[in-house]
Amino acid sequence: MDTLKEKSLRLHRDKKGKFEIRSKVPLRNADDLALAYSPGVAEPCKVIHDTPEAIYTYTTKQNTVAVVTDGSAVLGLGNIGPKAALPVMEGKAVLFKEFAGIDAIPVCLDTQDVDEIVETCQRIAPTFGGINLEDIASPRCVEIEKRLISLLDIPVFHDDQHGTAIVTAAALLNACRLTERKMEDLKIVLAGTGAAGYAIAKLLSSIGIKSLYAFNKEGVVHPSRHSSYDAPLQELIEKRIVAEPPSAAIETLEELMQGTDVFIGVSVGDLIDADAVRGMNKDPIVFAMANPTPEIDPAAARDAGAKIVGTGRSDHPNQINNVLAFPGIFKGALSARTKTIDEDMKIAAARALAYIIPDEELRTDYIIPSPFDKRVVDRIATAVKECAAKHS
Amino acid sequence: MDTLKEKSLRLHRDKKGKFEIRSKVPLRNADDLALAYSPGVAEPCKVIHDTPEAIYTYTTKQNTVAVVTDGSAVLGLGNIGPKAALPVMEGKAVLFKEFAGIDAIPVCLDTQDVDEIVETCQRIAPTFGGINLEDIASPRCVEIEKRLISLLDIPVFHDDQHGTAIVTAAALLNACRLTERKMEDLKIVLAGTGAAGYAIAKLLSSIGIKSLYAFNKEGVVHPSRHSSYDAPLQELIEKRIVAEPPSAAIETLEELMQGTDVFIGVSVGDLIDADAVRGMNKDPIVFAMANPTPEIDPAAARDAGAKIVGTGRSDHPNQINNVLAFPGIFKGALSARTKTIDEDMKIAAARALAYIIPDEELRTDYIIPSPFDKRVVDRIATAVKECAAKHS
Repeated sequence: MDTLKEKSLRLHRDKKGKFEIRSKVPLRNADDLALAYSPGVAEPCKVIHDTPEAIYTYTTKQNTVAVVTDGSAVLGLGNIGPKAALPVMEGKAVLFKEFAGIDAIPVCLDTQDVDEIVETCQRIAPTFGGINLEDIASPRCVEIEKRLISLLDIPVFHDDQHGTAIVTAAALLNACRLTERKMEDLKIVLAGTGAAGYAIAKLLSSIGIKSLYAFNKEGVVHPSRHSSYDAPLQELIEKRIVAEPPSAAIETLEELMQGTDVFIGVSVGDLIDADAVRGMNKDPIVFAMANPTPEIDPAAARDAGAKIVGTGRSDHPNQINNVLAFPGIFKGALSARTKTIDEDMKIAAARALAYIIPDEELRTDYIIPSPFDKRVVDRIATAVKECAAKHS
Repeated sequence: MDTLKEKSLRLHRDKKGKFEIRSKVPLRNADDLALAYSPGVAEPCKVIHDTPEAIYTYTTKQNTVAVVTDGSAVLGLGNIGPKAALPVMEGKAVLFKEFAGIDAIPVCLDTQDVDEIVETCQRIAPTFGGINLEDIASPRCVEIEKRLISLLDIPVFHDDQHGTAIVTAAALLNACRLTERKMEDLKIVLAGTGAAGYAIAKLLSSIGIKSLYAFNKEGVVHPSRHSSYDAPLQELIEKRIVAEPPSAAIETLEELMQGTDVFIGVSVGDLIDADAVRGMNKDPIVFAMANPTPEIDPAAARDAGAKIVGTGRSDHPNQINNVLAFPGIFKGALSARTKTIDEDMKIAAARALAYIIPDEELRTDYIIPSPFDKRVVDRIATAVKECAAKHS
């Protein structure tokens, strides 16, 4: 039997990459050519020249998103560069089309400099209705996104941050609904303070989480102790989103998890063991989202008492998967022609995603819809559009 | 009845732009997702990371061209900027697909600075198998192309220069075949020394033209008189591609055309009148390619004695149209994976295009094949590939 590796390589080789361009207009004869190209094409050009907003009426900009990467943090592969990142960006492009009908175009940049990435995105922006930043290493991904949001008049969204955060928030909302807990009562440990961890902490804070302790490569984050925290983490500390652990003596992740309700891992595989879960409060929630190996084996977490377990993997229940968020987010943002995707829209998206599952259907192994649930994209898109309408 | 203007605006509006992305891989379920996206997609990424050339095996790079413009010289509309240029770039993209099966992606740049255009193309290059520069004003288009050719390991081709030059050369070759003249005996007047004029002069010189006189906005080009010539024209003068007019007293285009065999116009509409054609040698050849209004009305040129008349328009015989060249050129270059499109390939392309019409089928109103002639693209692609094979 062929392995996944063999199957994947053969698919990519045989199909010669994963997407193609298709014409939406006929080009059978000189008359067709005269409409779609010279001389007829001059007409929409002139209208757009007079009224720049008309670009959304007459061109693909209304439905096109650039999927931009510098190849610095690709999947679990790390800094493999722009060329090796292209298969992932093509994958993202076909997901955009399949799930949201959006035409997404991979743009793999031959630079990893913040200023150069920002200015390149600015320069290519006229063509696109939005920019999806992808697989750019933290902390620079946060700065790049912030600068582009303030510079551009099209929505810019770093999926590794906010896609993950929105789906995590939805899963946590539903875990609370199912176990009849309140968000504000939860004590949460977050392992990993990179792009995803930063956005998860911010979004959870926006939806009412009060106690969130953080752990990263340097160990337990003690906001009152100075450390070499990077800028995004520093922001979380300054805004008091990351809380002080109960005791300054706490040094290990296992100690930090003692007496908490939720573990959220966006870090590395096999980070925690069963004892760490056993030390948590009764019926804990464990989202072990490191890929491909979770922070703890899901079965081991359940055996140790975890009531609800989620991972990033498709072969376990409760897959907390970006693909649940970005298609609907961009569909809503493009449709409302919003210039940014703000915090309210992310909260609205998380709630819409969670409430696709009615109370009576929630189960410990079904707290998040499947990416193939046909309701997901439109519910999220509608929530984003309604939010945009309120703001305008 | 609807005008072309109404029809074109309606087409662009109703279709919401002219191209879309299509997935080439199935995405029906989690197994499909695991192959095309995470975790399977990691396999081609790893292979490309180890062997960068494998990007051509596993991704769309092998068949993808960026259509890059700064919107500074769009059709006959001039400097309308990147947004208003998008309909033309989309048109180019669908022509690439329709005629050559190539996936082309519009990239309209929000800068008209040479350095910035060059560095932006460098940075986005990993994604693309080639770059087609389009509708960039002269003389900077020449410098941009030269710099990119020397910087990048993918073919870069400014269609307004070389596409036009290749098709003009093919038309002139066939005009000579039909009227039994030799290229080296022809006296040619070239009106217009912008991007297209520069490339036409260079290519005609490469295929044996000895006497080419030039005329531009400043009047007759007198190589021995100093003037404010721009860099590309200066190069033609230094390489003696532009010849000295018979007399230094010649001041007007009509005087310059006296006693010449061929008029090639890539300038502005209604530049010459019937008397200018009457002053040319017997059975002159007139290619009046300004768009949409030719340098002289084709009927007037024929009435004044022109044996063969060509224009850039689809509603007249002998349409000298870029679309005859670029699809085959890029198809050949991508297929041979050549790093540049050199002068020999352009000559080979011009000859291949010309000789699609056998001697016995040549007529004064049929010296160049139709863009819808199915043989065109593959004949040119084969010629380019054979040329690449010789060089390697």
